Amino acid sequence: MKIEIKNCSQCGSSKIDFAIPPGDNKKRYICRSCNFIHYQNPNIVAGCILEWEGKILLCKRAIEPRLNYWTLPAGFLENEEPLEFGAARESKEEANAYSNDLRIFSIYSLIHISQIYIMYYGTLKDGKHSPGLEESFETKLYAQEEIPWDELAFPIITENLKLFFDKEKTDKPHTGTVDKVGDEYKIIRS
Amino acid sequence: MKIEIKNCSQCGSSKIDFAIPPGDNKKRYICRSCNFIHYQNPNIVAGCILEWEGKILLCKRAIEPRLNYWTLPAGFLENEEPLEFGAARESKEEANAYSNDLRIFSIYSLIHISQIYIMYYGTLKDGKHSPGLEESFETKLYAQEEIPWDELAFPIITENLKLFFDKEKTDKPHTGTVDKVGDEYKIIRS
Repeated sequence: MKIEIKNCSQCGSSKIDFAIPPGDNKKRYICRSCNFIHYQNPNIVAGCILEWEGKILLCKRAIEPRLNYWTLPAGFLENEEPLEFGAARESKEEANAYSNDLRIFSIYSLIHISQIYIMYYGTLKDGKHSPGLEESFETKLYAQEEIPWDELAFPIITENLKLFFDKEKTDKPHTGTVDKVGDEYKIIRS
Repeated sequence: MKIEIKNCSQCGSSKIDFAIPPGDNKKRYICRSCNFIHYQNPNIVAGCILEWEGKILLCKRAIEPRLNYWTLPAGFLENEEPLEFGAARESKEEANAYSNDLRIFSIYSLIHISQIYIMYYGTLKDGKHSPGLEESFETKLYAQEEIPWDELAFPIITENLKLFFDKEKTDKPHTGTVDKVGDEYKIIRS
């Protein structure tokens, strides 16, 4: 999360400096009235690759950003929520989809937007899915040759689908980074 | 991160409600003057289990919380920082320690404090280490039978050391949850 802090969330003062606190080595938003430091750190996105009879579940986004583009069910992890629970919740919210055998598939750092993107893989329970209220216009199972590569919502979704179809399945999660340099996305597998 | 928001970070208004925004299902701090929503989400802690000749590197904390207790090098991931880089940075900051072969060892959700704790495992480069400025009083390599189990800083550190010494090494990261119920920590391996 990166948001400009204009007023102190604690005392309300507008005397906010963006400076390195004592003993630290990174700039933070510091209140000069009450000394409160507004830390900002990366967010976690958790989601699922759900498979049914060789096909993968995608959702057509009914919300911005990337309205109308296809995505894997995924979203921000909430406070007090276990990681796997967050991934499962997103599958339920976006696609009314469930899985009983989720395991970690990939962990990527999205540097330009300060997100850690953790995807699980599992079997879609009973092959059932439908668009989640408010979140998706449509849900659909796609075989590899049917994936709408030009209509995917985000580079990290493309990367996960490529990893899924290209790579040997192992217990070791796929890892890497995504960054945006100018208008270009730079993806490095590690 | 869970912090009470008393004033809007954008417009400075003190008219803050803790309520569910339209289209959401979770309470957030909402500014009633400018409608800004102050989202709060889990933080990521990244760290390392560094091994040298069968011994594990621990650091004696020179900072609160848990001053004087022993810990694995770990700390909050920063914005725009790749996960593995954060783990390596913490090892450098706390123990002047490096590794060339870091791989993911465990991923735990610390529910009661909304942290996702991701530990890497690697060989301590050249067996070298020393207390990091301001962060550690002492660094030391411990064999399994020497680990100061009663002087470890956090339950998640104990859990990682137990996993390391007890469990078979696989490519699959260890996963689980830690929660605090009353005064008791409840650890569940998944």
